[in-house]
Amino acid sequence: VTATLGAERVVDLLDAVRSSVPLVQCLTNAVVSGVTANALLALGATPAMTDIPDEAGPFAAVASAVLINTGTPRAEQRVAMTEAAAAAQAAATPWVLDPVAVGTLPVRTALARDLLRFSPTAIRGNASEILGLTGAGVGGRGVDAVDAPEAALDAAATLASELGTIVAISGATDHVTDGARVIRVSNGHPLLTAMTGGGCVLGAVIAAFLAVGDDALSATVAATVVYTIAAELAAVTARGPGSFAVELLDCLATVTDRDVRERLRLA
Amino acid sequence: VTATLGAERVVDLLDAVRSSVPLVQCLTNAVVSGVTANALLALGATPAMTDIPDEAGPFAAVASAVLINTGTPRAEQRVAMTEAAAAAQAAATPWVLDPVAVGTLPVRTALARDLLRFSPTAIRGNASEILGLTGAGVGGRGVDAVDAPEAALDAAATLASELGTIVAISGATDHVTDGARVIRVSNGHPLLTAMTGGGCVLGAVIAAFLAVGDDALSATVAATVVYTIAAELAAVTARGPGSFAVELLDCLATVTDRDVRERLRLA
Amino acid sequence: VTATLGAERVVDLLDAVRSSVPLVQCLTNAVVSGVTANALLALGATPAMTDIPDEAGPFAAVASAVLINTGTPRAEQRVAMTEAAAAAQAAATPWVLDPVAVGTLPVRTALARDLLRFSPTAIRGNASEILGLTGAGVGGRGVDAVDAPEAALDAAATLASELGTIVAISGATDHVTDGARVIRVSNGHPLLTAMTGGGCVLGAVIAAFLAVGDDALSATVAATVVYTIAAELAAVTARGPGSFAVELLDCLATVTDRDVRERLRLA
Repeated sequence: VTATLGAERVVDLLDAVRSSVPLVQCLTNAVVSGVTANALLALGATPAMTDIPDEAGPFAAVASAVLINTGTPRAEQRVAMTEAAAAAQAAATPWVLDPVAVGTLPVRTALARDLLRFSPTAIRGNASEILGLTGAGVGGRGVDAVDAPEAALDAAATLASELGTIVAISGATDHVTDGARVIRVSNGHPLLTAMTGGGCVLGAVIAAFLAVGDDALSATVAATVVYTIAAELAAVTARGPGSFAVELLDCLATVTDRDVRERLRLA
Repeated sequence: VTATLGAERVVDLLDAVRSSVPLVQCLTNAVVSGVTANALLALGATPAMTDIPDEAGPFAAVASAVLINTGTPRAEQRVAMTEAAAAAQAAATPWVLDPVAVGTLPVRTALARDLLRFSPTAIRGNASEILGLTGAGVGGRGVDAVDAPEAALDAAATLASELGTIVAISGATDHVTDGARVIRVSNGHPLLTAMTGGGCVLGAVIAAFLAVGDDALSATVAATVVYTIAAELAAVTARGPGSFAVELLDCLATVTDRDVRERLRLA
Repeated sequence: VTATLGAERVVDLLDAVRSSVPLVQCLTNAVVSGVTANALLALGATPAMTDIPDEAGPFAAVASAVLINTGTPRAEQRVAMTEAAAAAQAAATPWVLDPVAVGTLPVRTALARDLLRFSPTAIRGNASEILGLTGAGVGGRGVDAVDAPEAALDAAATLASELGTIVAISGATDHVTDGARVIRVSNGHPLLTAMTGGGCVLGAVIAAFLAVGDDALSATVAATVVYTIAAELAAVTARGPGSFAVELLDCLATVTDRDVRERLRLA
C-alpha cells in the first residue's frame, strides 16, 4: 500500500492539481469561507463558493469537485447542499462531506446523515464527527474531537465499506480508510488546531485532489500529505497562530516535490 | 477597587482561561466571524459559531459562555439569537451582548433592546451604541462612535444598575462599570480601530473571561486588559493594519503574566 | 485624457479619501466581507456591511457610497440589494455594481440585470462578467475570466453609454470606459489573482473614491491606480499569497503620493 501511495504518487497528484487548476465548488461555513478560498488559490485550484438554491445544483454538475461542510448550515444553504450533492452524484462530480459538529447538534446531524444517500466520494472529520455521523458517538465539542482517531476507525471502515467511500479521520495522526485498507499520515503540526479552519480547509484540499485523481483513496491521502507538510513548513517560521495561518497559505503555494519526498511520513 | 482588580487578578483569570479552555459560542456578524474564532483560539478558548435556530439554544445551555453581536443580524440569526439568549439565561450561562450599530439602524435596535430581557452578563459597545441601546443617543456611524466614552457613562451606569449587568464602553480609554463602580483601562493602541473586528473581538474575549470568573466586573476588566495589552505588543512590530491583525493573534497566544504586570494601566 | 487623469488627479483624490473618511456601505459576498472591510479601513474609509432588508435602504440614503457585489447573493441579501440600490439612486448616493459570476449563474444574473435600472455609478467586473451582464458572453468560471479585457470593450462601451455609467474591466491591464473614452491602467501584480477578493476589494475601493470625486471616470481610474500600485508595493516583500494579502492592507495604508507619481502607468 505504501508503495502505491508513496511520495511519487503524491507528487504526481500535486503536479496534476497545479497544472489542471480544478474548479472546486465550496458550500462551507461562514467562518472559514475566506481561508478556504485562499487555500485553494494558493494550492493552484480555483474556488467558487456557489451555495444558493438554483445555482448550487447546476454548478455542481460542471465543477471539478464539490465540498459540503456543515459548520454553519442555514436553512437556505441546507437546500443548496442537498441540491449540490444530488447534482454532483448525477454528474459523477467527486464530492467531499465534512460533517462539522455532527453528532452534537441536531439540525446538521440530520442533514449530514441525509446527504449520505448521494454517495460522497470522501468524508473528512475528526473522530467525534465520524462517530456522530454513524450514530455511534457521544459527540464532540463543536469542532473539537473528544475521541482519538483510533476510536473511530471501526466505524469509519464500516461507513467506507457500506457507502463505497473514503473516510479520513483527522487527528495528530490522520487515518484514511476505504474500508479495506488504512493509511496513516503522521505529518502535520499542532498549530493547525490553533487556527480556525485548520480541519475545514483540508476538506477543500481533498476535493481539489479528488478532481484530478482516479483513485479516491490515493487522492485523499495525497491531499492530506500535501496539506500537513505545508503546515510543517509554515510552523518553521510562524511566531504564533496568526502568522502560522499566513505562512500556511504561502507554503501551500510553494511546497515542492522535494519537500514531499523528504518529509512524507506514511504508515 | 484597583487593588481587587489589579494585575494579579488579571493574571489569575488569564491563566484560568488558558487552563480551562472555555467553549465560547458566538452568534456574531459575518464580517468578523473568522477573526473572532481565531482570537478565541489564540487566547486558549474554543470557539463555536453555532447560530442557527434549533441548535443555538441547546448549545447555549452547555457552552461555557455566549456572545451575541448584532453586526449583520439576518432574520434566521435573529431567531437564533433570541433562542440562545433565553437558553443562556435559563442555564445560567454567562453571555455578552455587543450591540453593533444599535441606535442607528432599526432592525438591530429593536432586537438588541428586546434581548435585554434575558439579562446579559455584560454589554460591550462604543459610546454611541450604549447610548443607542438605552434610547439616549443619536446613533453612530456603523461601528464608529461619534460620542466619547465619558458621554455614555451615566447611561451605562443606569443600564448596569437596572439590569444587574456590566457595561463596557470601548474607546481610547475603556470604561467598565457595574453601576456603582467605574474602572478605566487605558491600555490599547489606535491600530485596533484600523482592523475590522477590533471591537467585536473584545466582546468574544470578555465572554471567555466571564466563563472562568465568578465576578463579572473583574472578568470584564481582565478581558479588556489582556486584549488591549496584546494590541500594544502587536503594534510594536506591526507595519500597518494588515500585519497588526496577524500580530494581534500571535500576541494573544503569547502575552505573559509579566506583560500584564508591566503594562497594566487601570484608573 | 491622460493629462486630466494623471498622477496629480489621482493624488488629489487619494488625499480626499483619507481626509474625508467616506462611509462605504457594502452588500458583498460572505467570502470577502472581512478583507473588504479591512481594505477600506486601511485606505482611510469607514466600512459598514449593512445588508439586511429595512436597514440597507435607509443606510444607503445616508452612506457616502454603496457597493453591491453579487458573489453569494442569498434571498434576504437580494431583497436588501434591491432596496439599497433604489435608495442610493433616490438619494444620489454613488454606487458600484460588481456582478460576480454574472452570465454563468442564473439567480445572480437576473438580479444584476435588474439592478441596472437603478443606474449604478460604476460597474466593475472581469471581461466575462461584463459580457455576461450584457447578455453577450458565454460566462466565466466563477470569478475567473475566460475572456481578455479587450474582448469586452465594445460591450462595456455600449453599456456605459446606454446607462450613463462607468465600466471598469479588470485584467492584467484594467480598462475603464465611460462609453466615449477608454483609460487603460497597466499597474498591478499577478498575486492579486492568488488571493480571494483581489477583484472584489477593488469594487469597494472604487466606491470610496466615487464618494469624494465629482467625476466618476476620474474616480474609478484613481481607485484602480491606487489599488494596483498598492499591490505592486505589497508584492515586493510578499513571500506568497498569504503574506501578499497582509502586505496589501499595510500598503493601502501607507501608499504615498510619491509612489503614485513614480509608478503610474496609464494609457
